[in-house]
Amino acid sequence: MSQFIVIEGLEGAGKSTVQRHVVAWLEARGLSVMSTREPGGTPLAEKMRTLVKEVHEEPLSMEAELLLMYAARVQLVKNRIQPALAAGTWVVGDRHDWSSQAYQGGGRGIDAGLITQIKQAVLGDFGPDLILYLDIDPAQGLDRARVRGELDRIEQEQLGFFERTRARYLELAQDNPDCELIDASRNEAEVKAAVLACLERRLCIPG
Amino acid sequence: MSQFIVIEGLEGAGKSTVQRHVVAWLEARGLSVMSTREPGGTPLAEKMRTLVKEVHEEPLSMEAELLLMYAARVQLVKNRIQPALAAGTWVVGDRHDWSSQAYQGGGRGIDAGLITQIKQAVLGDFGPDLILYLDIDPAQGLDRARVRGELDRIEQEQLGFFERTRARYLELAQDNPDCELIDASRNEAEVKAAVLACLERRLCIPG
Repeated sequence: MSQFIVIEGLEGAGKSTVQRHVVAWLEARGLSVMSTREPGGTPLAEKMRTLVKEVHEEPLSMEAELLLMYAARVQLVKNRIQPALAAGTWVVGDRHDWSSQAYQGGGRGIDAGLITQIKQAVLGDFGPDLILYLDIDPAQGLDRARVRGELDRIEQEQLGFFERTRARYLELAQDNPDCELIDASRNEAEVKAAVLACLERRLCIPG
Repeated sequence: MSQFIVIEGLEGAGKSTVQRHVVAWLEARGLSVMSTREPGGTPLAEKMRTLVKEVHEEPLSMEAELLLMYAARVQLVKNRIQPALAAGTWVVGDRHDWSSQAYQGGGRGIDAGLITQIKQAVLGDFGPDLILYLDIDPAQGLDRARVRGELDRIEQEQLGFFERTRARYLELAQDNPDCELIDASRNEAEVKAAVLACLERRLCIPG
């Protein structure tokens, strides 16, 4: 049965690179695979992405940011992810629900219980089968992200914001049987090897 | 002290006309008055309004619709309504929180407790000082709205949707000391007279 695999982590952790490796690994096993990124991934969700990512003259309140993230997530899950899984397609996501827990919860300080309530109310028990959390020191990650180009509204936050975000990611990862913590401070080849070893161990799909 | 007065009701109930009468009544008493309409009223909230009002090829899920309504409301309350009230300006709103309870709750069937949780989480105890609920039979209201022009995505719902919406409005209005129920099936002059009589009785502002 097809599964939903999510890559989580801070800016510069290497999520999109790992996503490509996971997709290639699954496709090499003859599986049908769809990639997603959040927020976004449907026409309406991409419009919501623009609202949260762009720098606006009007301040976007943290509560509105959280609600927009979930509005975009609901659109993506109902209109793309769930139909794909139902059709036997594997889904590999660049970010999902933990990003809201980590960034809006840990980073901005919105109550974790409230975020869980909203999540439960609009998505129920739906969630990833496997989360690859790419752990990186925020300073190292942001250095990498800066090389890549301009930072968006959220990426322009202070280091303390990302430290709180990472701390929440680590709390979520701890003791969660659906999560693999990958040390993403290493070079790309080492991270790739660690990720593929995880997939071999957890998915048991003949190569 | 300045107050937040909200006009609620179905399509074609006459909300914007009543809003103008309320604003004129307050201004005639030398008060500073700001009008709002929901969803919308700030640059970002107007973008969210477009997402919920326009007809899109991609279906907008009812959960995403609800979250967008609250994201827009948070922006309007924090960036315009609360600053205005703090500066001594009266605010007269065309729709506010009851619209979500009535349309998304009553009309679409989203759990009322969940809507209240989201409201409480993002806006706390903030709410109107006075609600003028313009009650009208949905068939009569929609006839009036159709005369006005094309119907938007939500206004294109079936009659049963608006009957459930009205039923929820009536539940909210019942026994609520902050609400005045106005029979909006009457002609404009009669509705205006009823509204102004309410204001005279409730606000005690020398004319």
